[in-house]
Order: sequence, then C-alpha cells, then structure tokens
Amino acid sequence: MKEEIVRLQEKMKEYGVDYYIVTTSDPHCSEYVSEYDKERKFLSGFTGSNGDLVVGKNDAYLWTDGRYFVQAEKELKGSGIELMKMGEKDVPTVGEFLGDKVKDGDCIGFNGYTFTRHYIETLKEKLGDKKYTFKASEDLADMIWNDRPERSHNKAFVHDIKYAGVSVGDKIKEIREKMEELDCKQYFINKLDDIMWLFNLRGDDVACNPVALSYAFISMDEVYLFLQEDAVTDEVRTYLKDNGVILKDYDSVKDMLASYSYKGKTLLDDKCVNYLLYNLISEKSETVDKFNLTSDMKSIKNPVEIEGMRDFFLKDSVAMTKYIYWLKKCAERGCKTEDGETLTELNAGRKCDGLRAEIDGFMGISFETICAYGPNAAMMHYEATEESFAECKSEGMLLTDCGGQYPGATTDVTRTVIMGPVSEEEKKNFTLVAKGFLNLMYASFLEGCTGRNVDILARIPLWKEGIDYKCGTGHGVGYCLNVHEGPQNIRWKFLEGSNEAVLKPGMTVTDEPGVYIADGYGIRTENTLLIVSKLENSDGHFLAFEPLTFVPVDLDGIDVKYLDRSDIDQLNDYHKMVYDKVAPFLTEDEKAWLKEATKAID
Amino acid sequence: MKEEIVRLQEKMKEYGVDYYIVTTSDPHCSEYVSEYDKERKFLSGFTGSNGDLVVGKNDAYLWTDGRYFVQAEKELKGSGIELMKMGEKDVPTVGEFLGDKVKDGDCIGFNGYTFTRHYIETLKEKLGDKKYTFKASEDLADMIWNDRPERSHNKAFVHDIKYAGVSVGDKIKEIREKMEELDCKQYFINKLDDIMWLFNLRGDDVACNPVALSYAFISMDEVYLFLQEDAVTDEVRTYLKDNGVILKDYDSVKDMLASYSYKGKTLLDDKCVNYLLYNLISEKSETVDKFNLTSDMKSIKNPVEIEGMRDFFLKDSVAMTKYIYWLKKCAERGCKTEDGETLTELNAGRKCDGLRAEIDGFMGISFETICAYGPNAAMMHYEATEESFAECKSEGMLLTDCGGQYPGATTDVTRTVIMGPVSEEEKKNFTLVAKGFLNLMYASFLEGCTGRNVDILARIPLWKEGIDYKCGTGHGVGYCLNVHEGPQNIRWKFLEGSNEAVLKPGMTVTDEPGVYIADGYGIRTENTLLIVSKLENSDGHFLAFEPLTFVPVDLDGIDVKYLDRSDIDQLNDYHKMVYDKVAPFLTEDEKAWLKEATKAID
Repeated sequence: MKEEIVRLQEKMKEYGVDYYIVTTSDPHCSEYVSEYDKERKFLSGFTGSNGDLVVGKNDAYLWTDGRYFVQAEKELKGSGIELMKMGEKDVPTVGEFLGDKVKDGDCIGFNGYTFTRHYIETLKEKLGDKKYTFKASEDLADMIWNDRPERSHNKAFVHDIKYAGVSVGDKIKEIREKMEELDCKQYFINKLDDIMWLFNLRGDDVACNPVALSYAFISMDEVYLFLQEDAVTDEVRTYLKDNGVILKDYDSVKDMLASYSYKGKTLLDDKCVNYLLYNLISEKSETVDKFNLTSDMKSIKNPVEIEGMRDFFLKDSVAMTKYIYWLKKCAERGCKTEDGETLTELNAGRKCDGLRAEIDGFMGISFETICAYGPNAAMMHYEATEESFAECKSEGMLLTDCGGQYPGATTDVTRTVIMGPVSEEEKKNFTLVAKGFLNLMYASFLEGCTGRNVDILARIPLWKEGIDYKCGTGHGVGYCLNVHEGPQNIRWKFLEGSNEAVLKPGMTVTDEPGVYIADGYGIRTENTLLIVSKLENSDGHFLAFEPLTFVPVDLDGIDVKYLDRSDIDQLNDYHKMVYDKVAPFLTEDEKAWLKEATKAID
Repeated sequence: MKEEIVRLQEKMKEYGVDYYIVTTSDPHCSEYVSEYDKERKFLSGFTGSNGDLVVGKNDAYLWTDGRYFVQAEKELKGSGIELMKMGEKDVPTVGEFLGDKVKDGDCIGFNGYTFTRHYIETLKEKLGDKKYTFKASEDLADMIWNDRPERSHNKAFVHDIKYAGVSVGDKIKEIREKMEELDCKQYFINKLDDIMWLFNLRGDDVACNPVALSYAFISMDEVYLFLQEDAVTDEVRTYLKDNGVILKDYDSVKDMLASYSYKGKTLLDDKCVNYLLYNLISEKSETVDKFNLTSDMKSIKNPVEIEGMRDFFLKDSVAMTKYIYWLKKCAERGCKTEDGETLTELNAGRKCDGLRAEIDGFMGISFETICAYGPNAAMMHYEATEESFAECKSEGMLLTDCGGQYPGATTDVTRTVIMGPVSEEEKKNFTLVAKGFLNLMYASFLEGCTGRNVDILARIPLWKEGIDYKCGTGHGVGYCLNVHEGPQNIRWKFLEGSNEAVLKPGMTVTDEPGVYIADGYGIRTENTLLIVSKLENSDGHFLAFEPLTFVPVDLDGIDVKYLDRSDIDQLNDYHKMVYDKVAPFLTEDEKAWLKEATKAID
C-alpha cells in the first residue's frame, strides 16, 4: 500500500475514523483546483481532474470517469488502491459502496470544506438509518502532508469594464431583484468564477483559471467580498471601495457566517456551498437551495462580451491556423521543425502555446494544451510530459486541443491534423466526425431545447456505424474565466439530479465529437459556438449557432464519399468564412496554403 | 350561456358548489372513453379527446391543447364558454386558474371517479393553504343528463394465446416477483388496456379500443378481476376459472377495496387510479405510487406479438396501398370514383375502411379515420361528418390517417396523397417531411436514449426552415389494444412530471412529422416502427427502428433538390421493401402502378 495511504490510515486510527473520503474539490466546488488543494492527488498519485478516494482501515479505492480509466490504471499501479470505474456495470457509486460497507458505530471522516452539502446529503441517503458518525472538521490529509504547497495568494486585478460590459453595481441590482422574487434577504456565493464575474475581478490562484480565492455575501443593503490580504492591490482596494463593496479577509468568512444577524431567508446553492459553511448558515437562517443566480446570469454573454469574443476568438483562430500551417510544413520535412529538431508532442505543444502568447492581451493558456500523436490521442485528456512523450512521424494524426485566456475571451479549440498517410478507417472516421461537427454547428432549434435535444446531431453519423465517444458533445465556455462553465452543455444523457439547462441566446457551447480507438488513434474536431436568435414566427423562436472559432478542418482527412451534398456545402461555407476572416492576418506563404486548405470540395 | 351549463350551475347552487370541474376521463384514466363517460362533451359541446371544463357560478372555461384550438373555437361558439388555449403564453393551467380564483370558504366539486389522485394532488398544491372544501362524491352532471347513454357492457372475449404469446399465469408470476422487489403485498390496477393485456382478454366498451370496463386486484395468493356481469360469457367465465382468477362484479370494487384485509403495502399508480378509489385503499393500506408495472411490461412486445405485428401490419399496408392506388385512379378521372360519384372526404374514408375490413381477422378501426382534403388537413384531428365535409379536386393533397384492430396488431399509418398540381412550397414541405420521416426511421441510437434524444432527427429539416409541428413526433402503439400506448413516445419537450421512458427493443413507436398551414394545407407521413437491437460492442448497445408499415410515400410530392444522396438512398431502400413485400398481394394493375410508385429516384 502506498506510503501516504498507510500514514493516513494511522491518522484515521488515532482519530477513530473507519472510512476517510477525499474528493478533487476545494472549498469552492471548483473543477480545477490549486496545488494546495490537491489532497486526492497527494494521497493517491492520480492526477486527473475528477476522482474520489475512499480509504478504509486496510484498503483504499479510487473512483473516476471514463476519460481517465487508462490514465488512472497507470497512475495507480502498485499503489494498492483499487480503481472503481464510474458508470461501468456493477460498479457502485461512493455512496452505494459506503452504504454497503459501513457498519453501525463506524465513523466516516472527511474535510468538510471540500465536500458540497449536496454530496454529503446524498451520501446520508445511501447510509440510510445506520448508526454512523461524521467527523468533518479534521483535515487528516493535511496532517501528514509535510511538503504541502502554500495556499496560493496571487494578486487579483480589475477586469476592465470595456471588456466586462456591465458594472458590479448593475449586476448586484439585478441579483437583489431576483433575491426579492425568491423572498431571500441574503445570498452567499462560494463559486470562484461567479464571484470574479460578479465583481468584474480576475485572479491567478488556480492554474489556467483566472480566479482569486474568494467568497461573497450579499444582503439587501450590503455587499461583502472575502479575499486574501495578499491578493488585494491598492487598485483593487480602491475599486471595491468606489463600488461600495465591503472588503473582508478570506479566512474571516467562517466567523462572519456564524455571527451575522440574518434577516429572513438566505439563498445559496447547496450543490456548490461546502458542507461546513452550509451548516454555519443553516444554523442561523432558513436557507433557499437554488442553482446559483450568478451562474445563470454569467452564462448569457452581454453584447460587449459577445464583441470581445468575436474579436479574440478570431485572433486565437489566426494563431491556431498558423500552428497548423507550421505542423504541415514540419510533416513535409519528415516531421522535423525548421531547426531540424524532430517534431514531438512537446515541441509542437510549445509552438502552439508560443503562437498564442504573441497575441496582444494574452493572459495564459485556458487549460494544459493537449498535444497527442497516434495512439496517445485515444486518451481524451492525455498530457505529454518531459518524462513521457511521443515523437511525431509523417504518417497518422496529431490531435491538438488548446485554448487561451484573453481579457475578451476564453478560447477552446481542437483540430486533428493529418501528418501523412492514414488508413481508410481513419479517414472514414475523420470524415464522420467532421459530418457530426457540421451537423450540429449548422442546426436550428426551438427555444426550450436543452443540450440533450441536439446532442444526437453530432453523434448520429458515428452511431450509425456503431461508434460512440464516451463524453459529452460540448460544454459551456467562460469569458476570460474557466474553460468549463455551466449550466448549459450538450450531452445525450444526464445523471439524475444534474442540471439540464435550456440553451439560450448569448450562451457559448463547444461542439466536439470524436473517435477514440484505444491503442489506435484519436480524432476530435472542436469549435466554440455562440447561441444566437435566428427567427421568430408563429411556430416559435428558432435559435442557431454562430461559430466563434475559424480554423480549417484538415481536408487531407476528408473522404467525400462519406458526405452528403449538404455536408459538403456546409464544410465549404465554413471554410470560406475561415479564409475570409483569417487570411488578412497571415503571411503570404500561410495565405497561399490556407487558400488551398479551405478550397471548396466537391 | 349553454343550457346544460346553466342547469349544472343550478345543481351547483343546490349542492353548495362554487366551482365544478369536469375532465375527459372515465374511472380508468382512459384517453378515449365510452359515450356514457363523455360528461365534458355533454356539458360543453366540445368533442375533442382532451379538455377540462371549469364551471363557476356565472362563467365557464374549457382548456384544450394545440391539436384542438381550431375545432374547439368552432364547437364552443355561442356556448358562453371561454376557450383556454393550453400552453399559450399567459394562459394559466386549471390549477393556476383555480388557485387564483378560489376564495376562502369556497367548495370545489367534481366527480371523484373521473379524476386521478395525482390530478387532485396537483390541484391541492396550487390551492395552497386556502380554506376550501372538496365535494367529490356527487356526479352533478349525471343529475342533469336526462338522456345519458347506458354504460356499455359488451361481451368480453379471450385473446388467443397464439396471438398473446404469454399466459396470464406467467404474467402474474412476473408481476408478483416485481411486487416482492417493491415490498408490496397487493397491486390494484384500473387501467383498461393493462387489464386486458394482463388477462389476455379483449372487450368492446370504448369505440375503437378493444377493452372491457374492468378493475384488477392482485395479492400474493389471489387474483381478482372485476367485470360487468353482462360482459362475461361462459367462455370467459371458464377461462378465468381455469386460470385461477376470481371473477367479481365491476361495481363491487368499492366494497372490496373498503373491506379487504390488506397485508403490507399496496402498489398502485396514483397518476392513473381515480381519486375516490385511491382514498378507499389509502385509508386501509400504505400505498406505493409507481408507474404501472403492467404498462411497462405491455410496452415490450414478446416474440409472438412481434410476429403478429409483422404479419398484420403487412396485410394492413396492402389495404392502404390499394387505397392509395384507388385514390390516384379517382384523381385521374377528375376526382370521380369508379361509379362516377364525386370523390369526397367521406367516400374516400369509407373506401379506406372498407379495404381494411376485407382483411381476415379485422376487428374494427383503431381510431376514427381522418380523411382531410386541402385546408382541412391543417387540423391534425379533423373529422369529416355528413354535415360537413369537403369534395376532393384533382389538385392539392388528401391526407388519410387511419388504422385497424386485428388479433395480432393495432395499426396506425398516415399518407398524404398528391391529387394533382401542388405549389412549389407544398412540394418543398412534403419533401422535408419525408426527409425527417426517413431520418428518424433510419437512425441508430444507444440504449438509454428516450424519445427526447431522437425527436430532432424528424424535426430538423423543418426547423432549419423555421417550421414546427405542434405535437409529438410519435407515440407508442398497442397490440390489439389502444392505438396510443405508453410509456414510450417521441417528443422534444416533456411537461414536468411526465414520463420520459427509455426506448427499448420490442417497443413500438410512430414516426409522424408533418407540416400544418392553417387555412392552407396539411402534410403528414406516418409509419409505425418497432425498436430492435442492432449491434452490441464495447461502445454500447445500439438500437434501430424496423418499419412495420410498408406503404409508398407519394413520389409526386418529392422534389429531389431538397434531398441529400443519403435521403434518396433511404427512400429508395424503403420503397424497394414496400414493393417486395406488398406486390405479391396486389392485382396486376395495382402491381404495375406500385412498381412505378416505388421506383428508385435519383
């Protein structure tokens, strides 16, 4: 058994804990967390973005989802931790597992700041009327984590109104109107990107996510923002003061929630607020549990944000197009760079990031660039490292999934580039992925549709061939914020209790079907789309997608025999837009290449 | 104000009732009811299959859905009853309406046998903590309905095991296993088609629906069936006795439910069991409210039933094909029948029914044949009558939606026939309907999909043109039972609380997109499909649709410029099947015509 697990088990014994559970989150229900918060990674060695660890007295189990099965198997090898493949037949959930294992008198320990109230309530249901106890206020992992990184406390900064579009004052006003409708006198928010959006602030406490560790508390006459002392610059302090926001220290939130003179009900999102802070509030105030107002409001981009996205997505598309040109040139040279180096996943990724870094306003990448050659691309969330990476050859395909942070956009794009000869099967599947991708991008649908209504448009060409990709078709994308954002997304299946949001004009979604053949190859084509109003008549309000991404789809991978006339028309139409928009920003050589790469096919 | 309403209002005064509500149902939550049960029609004059009437002291309101707006407006004219268009903006539901109108001290009256327990519970929620009373045991409409028809009590008969496939004993065994899993000791069923299916009986108490008025009650060691004395033949009596079923009189169900010695919990479907009977049970036994087991079981057709359907749907398709041939010949003669009569909606419908009646085993039509010419087809549920019907001309389109009852199938098919010149727009929309219809019929999808996942496949060609049809794309179809059957259906939107069933192999669904232009024309093309297993691999279990209906789609309405290669291939593939299967049963003339009507197009 892995040393960290053994040491945790000793602590468990000391504290009388029979099962200790660790999740991937932080006190803010973040999908991606700071190094400080990676307790589950520290204990298990598994580095994926989703996973729950359950440690018993003599055993340990890690749950993760289909994106990470291959990676988790590798990373857990020799750890003594058993992998629990979420969603697979006969694999219980954490709740079902504990519901089965826990005996009367057992104690279940966890760090109550890193589990949402909803998670714990669901767990309680599974435990039924067993006589167990919870120990939620001791962070046992912390006690054994000797070289735990410091909690990050980078400087926060103001997100210019010329990019944000709406002032904090106007946002608060709208929130208070909604609070009134819900008969709530206070609203507590712990979700970092929502808080950043609300206050028009940004930070740098989580890699690739421009957020500052923070909490917010809004009453009908006061607004509190909790930030770490070290994160607050004079600029931010003055800005908040000018906007009537009361600045408090991040760590004082517990005392404040415990001692506040609540009036009436308090609004919060129990699927987001952590267990311990929830308990502090609910001891003093009736709570109204509702999906965060701020998440709904943030998801509908305002006109200024939409302009920002159109502008920065184009700049980002230019960089991505230049990168593909560069890859193609490398492939022509036998997969050598212009300096004669062998093209690898690492230097390709660096080139990609480097081109993006030249964009005026570039703030960083929006997630770790995925540059995956050949079989590596079959792992959806593959990451090449200095220790383990592949060299590219002038054959097969290289998949690059990447994005940038800008004051006026967060981008997310994937292209799979044909590096040389590919098999008939690869070409067929590349073409079917493109067909699904276009099918969805060119769809129209009635207002009221959710992602579940439209998902099949991207999937049907593959489903007809008996192929599926084991992930959603798309997710919402933040605006100078997190690359994954809700409530909207495009999936064909929803877990019980998950939020199935109606698609509305102003929302962004990605369109990213793919084919993943284990030990074979991986194909994904991804654009970010904006939902727009198309037509309103007596039959209803029809919506459509406007592409924000303008990057060619590699025609070397397209076999027209798998396409219909309308697919070809759509591809040609999209490629014409790509050329018209991107060409003005290219060198003559790049432009000549793009002309060919976007030529109308028949 | 309509006389019947005035007389009801007098009765309401007498009984101290302030609002009296009447729905379309019977004690069995039937969609289609016997003449005896048409209280809402008697009071309001509205003949549609869905509608709730609310009568106040001086006013009256009728709620119905989009299929019936035009019809209801006509039928309510001069009645003094206000039409409430369900689903339209700012139109409250019955519950919201009463929630708003009812004052403390008011009494709401209704016939508690015709409202489900769920309906009344939902109403209670809307009424909140107002101080109202219910009067549910007086049937005020009955008191003023002087010439009310007798309750029908036609003979029930045994559904031969060679068509039913599974014996009542085996069905009961499976139900008891499921009852055990749910920890229930009794199971009460009031749904007529479920009871018929369970006991392999059929009846004739509701027009077009081969059901007998009945209730069933299953304990762990006894099975009770409640039938009207007059409905029981010696054959049925002996059959039930041989199968260990205790026969009771239909009207004795109340006494039985009130006096039964319940052991443990009782299973029932509160969305189906009527309010008064529910109350009788719940006073004596804890209840478990769950969608009827029998509805789920019945929806998955067994291999014998599937064989029966393939056989009888083909016979039905032959009749329908002969009918279309006949229509085309009439059109050629300037819309005259072979006897020189002018072709009308009425004689066309009679011809259609007559051809079906020639099929060996024909038991009757499965719903009133819709034969609608020109603008009449824009009304989805149009019915021509002796008083009001259209003559056909050798131009435009004639829509025929019809079906039959057979011992081995209930059929449902719609074809729109081109009678002569049609406009460019009509041809375009006819082609787009065909495209959506083929799109869905030729789809593949993963097990776990519901009708909501696949609905868009039928709708997307129309949605891209800003056109929608205001109904679902498809419904389940019974087997020698009701033409509408759940739980499965194909819709893009589900009302809160409605059953969104997973599509499973063995289920039937219709595929019936359409275009309805008010005062213009109507187009609908409909097949009944069987869900089948297609392929199981590491990506999952892929399902597909097998058409049960084989009737040509009128090529005179098809403009290939709106079709893709794959649409054309699918249409040609389907038409080849139609010819191969149907031609052997046609005359030489019909066969020659069908050859042309199903020729491959390009």
